[in-house]
Amino acid sequence: MPGNSFGERFRITTFGESHGGGLGVVIDGVPAGLPLDLSAIERDLARRRPGQSALTTPRKEADSFEVLSGLFEGRTLGSPLTLLFRNADADARAYAPFKDLYRPSHADFTTQAKYGHRDWRGGGRASARETVARVAAGAVARQVIAPIDVVAWVHRVGDIEGPDGWDPDAWEGGAAAVEANPVRCPDPAAAAAMEALIRAVRADGDTVGGVVRCVCRNVPAGLGEPVFDKLEAELAKAMLSLPAAKGFESGSGYAGARMRGSQHNDPFASGPNGLPVTTSNRSGGIQGGISNGMPVTFTVAFKPVATIFRPQDTVDVHNQPATLTPRGRHDPCVLPRAVPMVEAMAALVLADQLLRARASRP
Amino acid sequence: MPGNSFGERFRITTFGESHGGGLGVVIDGVPAGLPLDLSAIERDLARRRPGQSALTTPRKEADSFEVLSGLFEGRTLGSPLTLLFRNADADARAYAPFKDLYRPSHADFTTQAKYGHRDWRGGGRASARETVARVAAGAVARQVIAPIDVVAWVHRVGDIEGPDGWDPDAWEGGAAAVEANPVRCPDPAAAAAMEALIRAVRADGDTVGGVVRCVCRNVPAGLGEPVFDKLEAELAKAMLSLPAAKGFESGSGYAGARMRGSQHNDPFASGPNGLPVTTSNRSGGIQGGISNGMPVTFTVAFKPVATIFRPQDTVDVHNQPATLTPRGRHDPCVLPRAVPMVEAMAALVLADQLLRARASRP
Amino acid sequence: MPGNSFGERFRITTFGESHGGGLGVVIDGVPAGLPLDLSAIERDLARRRPGQSALTTPRKEADSFEVLSGLFEGRTLGSPLTLLFRNADADARAYAPFKDLYRPSHADFTTQAKYGHRDWRGGGRASARETVARVAAGAVARQVIAPIDVVAWVHRVGDIEGPDGWDPDAWEGGAAAVEANPVRCPDPAAAAAMEALIRAVRADGDTVGGVVRCVCRNVPAGLGEPVFDKLEAELAKAMLSLPAAKGFESGSGYAGARMRGSQHNDPFASGPNGLPVTTSNRSGGIQGGISNGMPVTFTVAFKPVATIFRPQDTVDVHNQPATLTPRGRHDPCVLPRAVPMVEAMAALVLADQLLRARASRP
Amino acid sequence: MPGNSFGERFRITTFGESHGGGLGVVIDGVPAGLPLDLSAIERDLARRRPGQSALTTPRKEADSFEVLSGLFEGRTLGSPLTLLFRNADADARAYAPFKDLYRPSHADFTTQAKYGHRDWRGGGRASARETVARVAAGAVARQVIAPIDVVAWVHRVGDIEGPDGWDPDAWEGGAAAVEANPVRCPDPAAAAAMEALIRAVRADGDTVGGVVRCVCRNVPAGLGEPVFDKLEAELAKAMLSLPAAKGFESGSGYAGARMRGSQHNDPFASGPNGLPVTTSNRSGGIQGGISNGMPVTFTVAFKPVATIFRPQDTVDVHNQPATLTPRGRHDPCVLPRAVPMVEAMAALVLADQLLRARASRP
Repeated sequence: MPGNSFGERFRITTFGESHGGGLGVVIDGVPAGLPLDLSAIERDLARRRPGQSALTTPRKEADSFEVLSGLFEGRTLGSPLTLLFRNADADARAYAPFKDLYRPSHADFTTQAKYGHRDWRGGGRASARETVARVAAGAVARQVIAPIDVVAWVHRVGDIEGPDGWDPDAWEGGAAAVEANPVRCPDPAAAAAMEALIRAVRADGDTVGGVVRCVCRNVPAGLGEPVFDKLEAELAKAMLSLPAAKGFESGSGYAGARMRGSQHNDPFASGPNGLPVTTSNRSGGIQGGISNGMPVTFTVAFKPVATIFRPQDTVDVHNQPATLTPRGRHDPCVLPRAVPMVEAMAALVLADQLLRARASRP
Repeated sequence: MPGNSFGERFRITTFGESHGGGLGVVIDGVPAGLPLDLSAIERDLARRRPGQSALTTPRKEADSFEVLSGLFEGRTLGSPLTLLFRNADADARAYAPFKDLYRPSHADFTTQAKYGHRDWRGGGRASARETVARVAAGAVARQVIAPIDVVAWVHRVGDIEGPDGWDPDAWEGGAAAVEANPVRCPDPAAAAAMEALIRAVRADGDTVGGVVRCVCRNVPAGLGEPVFDKLEAELAKAMLSLPAAKGFESGSGYAGARMRGSQHNDPFASGPNGLPVTTSNRSGGIQGGISNGMPVTFTVAFKPVATIFRPQDTVDVHNQPATLTPRGRHDPCVLPRAVPMVEAMAALVLADQLLRARASRP
Repeated sequence: MPGNSFGERFRITTFGESHGGGLGVVIDGVPAGLPLDLSAIERDLARRRPGQSALTTPRKEADSFEVLSGLFEGRTLGSPLTLLFRNADADARAYAPFKDLYRPSHADFTTQAKYGHRDWRGGGRASARETVARVAAGAVARQVIAPIDVVAWVHRVGDIEGPDGWDPDAWEGGAAAVEANPVRCPDPAAAAAMEALIRAVRADGDTVGGVVRCVCRNVPAGLGEPVFDKLEAELAKAMLSLPAAKGFESGSGYAGARMRGSQHNDPFASGPNGLPVTTSNRSGGIQGGISNGMPVTFTVAFKPVATIFRPQDTVDVHNQPATLTPRGRHDPCVLPRAVPMVEAMAALVLADQLLRARASRP
Repeated sequence: MPGNSFGERFRITTFGESHGGGLGVVIDGVPAGLPLDLSAIERDLARRRPGQSALTTPRKEADSFEVLSGLFEGRTLGSPLTLLFRNADADARAYAPFKDLYRPSHADFTTQAKYGHRDWRGGGRASARETVARVAAGAVARQVIAPIDVVAWVHRVGDIEGPDGWDPDAWEGGAAAVEANPVRCPDPAAAAAMEALIRAVRADGDTVGGVVRCVCRNVPAGLGEPVFDKLEAELAKAMLSLPAAKGFESGSGYAGARMRGSQHNDPFASGPNGLPVTTSNRSGGIQGGISNGMPVTFTVAFKPVATIFRPQDTVDVHNQPATLTPRGRHDPCVLPRAVPMVEAMAALVLADQLLRARASRP
């Protein structure tokens, strides 16, 4: 398949450029009869929206959507559920001065190399605007996987780290603490420091990266497949497919790679319902690629946004040296808005595996 | 699809348990007419083989293979190329004492939870023996992607790090330096320290994790797809599907997430053949999910092997507390043998993307 | 994958019910840089349109479309090409009296049985309106496969047969003869008889079936795969996926099954460009599942339309006996409008195989 | 995917040429815990075996198989079930005289055209021997779909037709009547006439085609997907992927295309368990692509075997005219042995749809 679809049984296909008629998603495989809560989709979209706080780009983006198909009398039909987002009457002229320049660490050159033809207005398919379709589909997936609960938050911005640990119930305010500040870090002090850093970086015409953490609770044991489609492999692909993502850790991740087996192994203990639990969770809820009933935990690293407001060396489409000085409005830090994207991709993976798992026994 | 296949156009399906008739791989999509170098397959298998050095498990494993199909007069037919590895007459009795215990941080419990029926002799599909099929298929993929060249090495064991940097030509002895010692770290001093650590850990009945680095050179610009099947997303899935893998970084990875955009961006400069180059490579050779012609670089974190020779708390299949004291022969550190596995998975991803890319233009 | 997608490398996903926001198609895998002729899409849509002649339903259908994505400055981007057809403000009230009845030989009951929730307004996904998306996508595929040329025509209506043979150049007027009359049978006399039959059947409140023939010319040798994805297998699936299709023949078909091998085999003779030709074509241009360079020929049988204007025995959704007396406007014979649908599905199969074939050699 | 796999959730991949190390099938997606009856596989293989009667080729073929993986203590593991058939020490010399000739209506030329490299020993992947893998996999699928029951029989050989109708219970001896004679036609008189025809054709150095009918009973309502993966579309692809298949009819087929809607529609009546039945079955158990609970019925047309023992005009690999005079041992009529192949492909389609259907509701 060409690369615009994700998932096997719960399968989304996104389409659309940042400029042009619109952007959307066809969600195939939604079980029939599900009462769909459209306001839940809107809530997640609002969390992704540019301009939601002083920390994000002031650019406006139309992200109200229309349900084109798949819904009747408020319930899903089992047919493709299609959501369409119209592009605002975006002014492509802002991009015209740079149409013949390859922006450093953007997809301009690689798109040209691959396709030989390119929509220079805003990044085409590589635009972060494509994630609006993912977040909407993820909000549908959340409703399919309930009572599984997916919570992500900003763990690090630059060198400033939030609280260690993976349990939202340990935070003051619980999981809602994530939404209590514009940075989406559940620790107020760390959040304030992160916010100050982002403001300073922006004032400097610069950008900064960071790390998101995510926990999926109430995941039943048995999701994921043992060899190539391991649950952590599917999550890794999902996360690395997000714009600006540079790394992924399952459970203990890179820190676990420094440990001894005697420190790292998760002992089993008798648990409720005749099923074991583990007394630690360095496995991140996944063993042998299959969920074990403990919380599924992972991190995602995001690089600093490539669009900075400083002159940069580059070349033009004729391979001639040039200088790029971007203008316009961009996020100084993608992390706060990456939180709902990470949650969405996790929900999509879990919905797919949940439907796939139904075929594993007679 | 069930999860035993990997790739779209260059597609492998592996089969087989560690015990039973055998283990193998069907490689579908190998272009026809390729003169196949079987000795190259054997060379990579030898690098994966248990018992190859004092640092790996002394367990013997039959990994000679038979070509069942797809080859005629030394050249590929375009039909499925099938390689079969017979299982040695493995003694399952070694596993019998533990058949009713869930080994901590192994796949025993999750396999039981998913399937309700389990081959307790050696881990079934979750056995690391499955990787013999991947390494063989990867050695075929290498021949398809030539002159692309894939080199991995051990970058870290526990807290001991090898040389920074990604250029095998910078090492004394070049890429061959990886094979110059049993640890597969190209720096002799670091390798010696790693070897000492592994020996100490083993003497302690323990195991230790680490990090592999990999570079793919001569990758043409244009591989990978812009949205879900980004080249780094495919690599991330491939790597996290390896046993014991816990993390993945593309290019700058988690370190890049600490940087500013002004530090992180890779400036373009005029390059040969009318194509630009970048003067740094924090992008890891991939921009917007598509290769840019620079070396593709990534790391993979591996946890310490779960089988340790110390008593551990666990439960049995009836959810009753028990103590596990493993015996037998296992690797104290999977890193040296992970090197050919990482290379194989990278070659498989690149072969698939190379064939897929042929359809992107008229 | 759920069943709303077709094709591997040239892959369409259709969405939408006959009532609701709209109906459309995402075409993924269109090679980049193709100058897209939108008027060619409109021409094929006009051939499928209800109300185009006195022989089809007088029902009006909005089938103007909007290109939502994938096109820039008149050329394809290599990204998903999405076409949206708005539903006219369709009056669902016409269906309300029958919403609790299962119409005989329609999909009402089976949809209810499968999904437990059903859009009773016009057939939902089972509506023939879904084919508007296929015809549009097929018109794109035709531009990808040029100079391959796909021509279908009505060969039979009820018991009235058109000319035998498969060569449009043998007809007075050539391939254009198909469009010279509303029946789409290239023989004027047979066309007139068919038209009279359709008028009589309609006057009788009844419907009638028939057979379409199709020939694909300029197909290069080498399309199709040898085992499961044989070219005729892909065509068979494509054709049987059309509403009301009941049969498929490749080349000699059911008549060939009456023959001896000595009558049926196609002798090879020396042909131009160093390639052989066959002096007969009972193979229908396909041998061992792979095109041989001769015209690809097949037929498709269509049952009579299920909506008739006579009282019929049925049951309601509570399994109670009932009588259905449909009203409204429907085609008395689907054959004339099936011609562009058959061509579209053939073009989609060929486009997919053409792109797939690029990977078969090094 | 390359074309050597079939099915989505119950997915087989076959491999192997008629000569070489062996031929086999990897069956992925078999639910775990199924007690597998190996003797049932052997029974179906015996029905496909060459040399089983005086009507088939006297050629011997080794079709005992080995279970390489996926089975433990007699029950499936949920992992790939792999069956291997060794090739007998086949004497390729019989093919050597023809290695540079393209046999008419065989796949020699098309294979060469597609791949540029070809195993001339016995047809390679295009050999009918490949169907041994399908029949074995189909026998596994039958065990997955029980109590669904699949019965095929020879309906026509040349112009000799067996009994009309689709109900094995109407035959003297029931479904077992199919196996009561070597032709596999349940009507003794027709079977005798068919047998005489096949003997006469063989004596003449010729071959003859025919038609197989198949009925699947106890299929629950709700299998199949509404648009592209309609149940009849999947069956059509499955059947046309069989060697020598030239046509497919679902339910009323080509005869139905001659009817009026008032004759063709299947009235609903109240049935047991609150579900309707139809009082006729011209729909062949499928409406709108989804099974309706009635028997699923279809036919498959097979051309006469291409290998005849008469001189034929052809060309050689250099496009030069030549005469081919085959020798050796071949079937004069493929129909009797096609019966288990048709059943196998039907069972594979149903197993796949059965597993897929599990995901259609919450």
